[in-house]
Amino acid sequence: MGNLEKDGVSLGKAAVLLVLHTGGAETALQDRSVACGYKVYKGKVGSMDSAKIFAAITTAAKREGLINDRYREEHALYHSILEAYHGICRGQDGLGNVMRSAGLLFSIVRGPRLPNDAADGEWIAIALYGSMGAPIKGFEHEVLGLGINPV
Amino acid sequence: MGNLEKDGVSLGKAAVLLVLHTGGAETALQDRSVACGYKVYKGKVGSMDSAKIFAAITTAAKREGLINDRYREEHALYHSILEAYHGICRGQDGLGNVMRSAGLLFSIVRGPRLPNDAADGEWIAIALYGSMGAPIKGFEHEVLGLGINPV
Amino acid sequence: MGNLEKDGVSLGKAAVLLVLHTGGAETALQDRSVACGYKVYKGKVGSMDSAKIFAAITTAAKREGLINDRYREEHALYHSILEAYHGICRGQDGLGNVMRSAGLLFSIVRGPRLPNDAADGEWIAIALYGSMGAPIKGFEHEVLGLGINPV
Amino acid sequence: MGNLEKDGVSLGKAAVLLVLHTGGAETALQDRSVACGYKVYKGKVGSMDSAKIFAAITTAAKREGLINDRYREEHALYHSILEAYHGICRGQDGLGNVMRSAGLLFSIVRGPRLPNDAADGEWIAIALYGSMGAPIKGFEHEVLGLGINPV
Amino acid sequence: MGNLEKDGVSLGKAAVLLVLHTGGAETALQDRSVACGYKVYKGKVGSMDSAKIFAAITTAAKREGLINDRYREEHALYHSILEAYHGICRGQDGLGNVMRSAGLLFSIVRGPRLPNDAADGEWIAIALYGSMGAPIKGFEHEVLGLGINPV
Amino acid sequence: MGNLEKDGVSLGKAAVLLVLHTGGAETALQDRSVACGYKVYKGKVGSMDSAKIFAAITTAAKREGLINDRYREEHALYHSILEAYHGICRGQDGLGNVMRSAGLLFSIVRGPRLPNDAADGEWIAIALYGSMGAPIKGFEHEVLGLGINPV
Repeated sequence: MGNLEKDGVSLGKAAVLLVLHTGGAETALQDRSVACGYKVYKGKVGSMDSAKIFAAITTAAKREGLINDRYREEHALYHSILEAYHGICRGQDGLGNVMRSAGLLFSIVRGPRLPNDAADGEWIAIALYGSMGAPIKGFEHEVLGLGINPV
Repeated sequence: MGNLEKDGVSLGKAAVLLVLHTGGAETALQDRSVACGYKVYKGKVGSMDSAKIFAAITTAAKREGLINDRYREEHALYHSILEAYHGICRGQDGLGNVMRSAGLLFSIVRGPRLPNDAADGEWIAIALYGSMGAPIKGFEHEVLGLGINPV
Repeated sequence: MGNLEKDGVSLGKAAVLLVLHTGGAETALQDRSVACGYKVYKGKVGSMDSAKIFAAITTAAKREGLINDRYREEHALYHSILEAYHGICRGQDGLGNVMRSAGLLFSIVRGPRLPNDAADGEWIAIALYGSMGAPIKGFEHEVLGLGINPV
Repeated sequence: MGNLEKDGVSLGKAAVLLVLHTGGAETALQDRSVACGYKVYKGKVGSMDSAKIFAAITTAAKREGLINDRYREEHALYHSILEAYHGICRGQDGLGNVMRSAGLLFSIVRGPRLPNDAADGEWIAIALYGSMGAPIKGFEHEVLGLGINPV
Repeated sequence: MGNLEKDGVSLGKAAVLLVLHTGGAETALQDRSVACGYKVYKGKVGSMDSAKIFAAITTAAKREGLINDRYREEHALYHSILEAYHGICRGQDGLGNVMRSAGLLFSIVRGPRLPNDAADGEWIAIALYGSMGAPIKGFEHEVLGLGINPV
Repeated sequence: MGNLEKDGVSLGKAAVLLVLHTGGAETALQDRSVACGYKVYKGKVGSMDSAKIFAAITTAAKREGLINDRYREEHALYHSILEAYHGICRGQDGLGNVMRSAGLLFSIVRGPRLPNDAADGEWIAIALYGSMGAPIKGFEHEVLGLGINPV
């Protein structure tokens, strides 16, 4: 784990750090991720309508070339989003239907599970981080979700 | 967000970074967290029996003085663990009953939601990070969960 | 609703009041329930093992003649217990697996949905009431669940 | 439990009895609740849109002064509503999306968990009671949910 | 099981085979089902709005005389649809809210659980079969759900 | 769909028919599946302990060469079992913990989603069929679940 701790970063950790870091730390992490063999993307989405979260991430993943146009890639992406979405919902799935709203950053990271380790093929990780709460400014707290699937 | 980005860190972000960082980055984060008015603890638990995860965190929180001995504090801690547990289970709660195992680091962070902001009282954040999968070495991927409640 | 409020009581309300009332109020309710055409039973069960709750109620219902020995009656009873159990678990099913315990009173009420109204046949209502919490005395709060199915 | 049974009533029981009782029994219960140190409110909401249930209760709690304008109070209220909502949904969250409708009475009760017992601070209980079913008159049965959190 | 295998078919198996078979096999199965004492119906529904699935099946069941106009029959049908719907959703209930769509065949089969066995009364089985996925042609895979309740 | 209906069968349909058919129909289906490019296996498992269902299917899939020894194949199999398991549980996951037992046939089918269509790679389908109910002979009804993932 020595070199990994200094230079490398695992796929899921890269996805989570990417939604948490800003400024120079974010840029450094992106470089480190690329050096590990990962493709990365970071975006933003906010809504009371959960479908918009799925749509924003799916659109970005296709546009940025993080998945190709085969269904099996879209399926892996979809299930990673769904798992991250479970993480931010914490047991009660839904946003507007239970009168809450989410303002989120998302990351998409594709590559091996461990840095430069091609033995088990490619995986796709989705991290969601932001705040969820009543549709009133400041009445919200942080949420985070992570989903990973082979692609 | 300027100073916050440089010096401060929000409660949930502190909890998540604490389970992700190791070595010098971990020590630096702990110092930064204390400067924000947070009490922090980091521990380790692995099991196919989900109750052991709840027990390990609850025991640590009491022993380290992160909650006092009133039921309302224990209740806030319990629900934060439960929410983080949902995050790592991603839609299907359970470990051994669905033949999977978890090896986890956990963090407990208590303090204001934003650094040194006493206006909304104290909150407690639990982050869980590690790997989940088949009870076979290497057949597992990363999972992460975060739960936050007022205490 | 006039006479109903004074003399009658609907099936679900009878089941819930039966687990809530004690002493004279309980006796009065039992008489009132019988006058409405209901068969009633009240018992007690406490456990960290959810199966014991199902077993205690099923055994009582059979022994007291609240269901007969056909599968369709047992099926209606089972689903009423399951629905009441959802009510006390509030979104996260499980007891010992998420390190909590329940001490419960249960009621079984069988009859028409409305007092002496045979038009829609017989239904079975299960109410569960008690406290759930950490396995520490006093570290628990009240929970209540109600399930109703045609029998 | 002697005096408690005659004069006092626990927080959750008060919330449930309040949605069940009408007329003189309701008035008597309200007096008894106030004597126990509780603030109480009872209202009505019906919808196929679950968000309206959350909105009606939240609006009433604020208007009637049962919660103040800090987020931690709103958070406690929200989670109590969510838990009561799980109770009426019984394992499948949703109303209109699974083609069913709810006509409900709700109660909000705030105070100590046990009558006049200040040792563990204040808690908030939400009870929901009414009928759920197909959007056809009479094609519905009783449902009940209870949620309690420290505030 | 000998004659049963040749001539008879159990209620749930009849419902599932009915949504899977087409052409001559479907006609043969319908004849075989009627000989077993079952009433059967097969229809089609596609939507991103889950309520439309419930509505289509309920409407068909009433129009075709598979349930009468009492609430207890409607209740049994509803819960059978709900259980089949869980089967096609596989752990995350919802369609449009998680950005997916379903194109389904459904069957309704009413009768004894086993062919011509009146001992345990009538039951109702609902099977759903089709494809679910992104709202893009070909980006979908097969799903199947089955729900059974006494009627 | 003409030739497909006569000669071919889609992946999920093959999995479901395999658990439903017996005798000559089962043999014919196996031949037809092999002609479509599928590998198939059918087994049996019964338990009140859900982990045994996962274990039985995983063991069979490895022993029969339906998955290789890479984690990504095991992951696809696991999620297909989990989805089929949701189908038989219908909204309340668990067996012994909610006092019910399952006696099941299972099928594993691996290949293209449509017969001899290599364009979208290989997928794995798991079907579960049998009876679930009280641990009393005859007090049980049919259940069916299907899960499909790219492998």
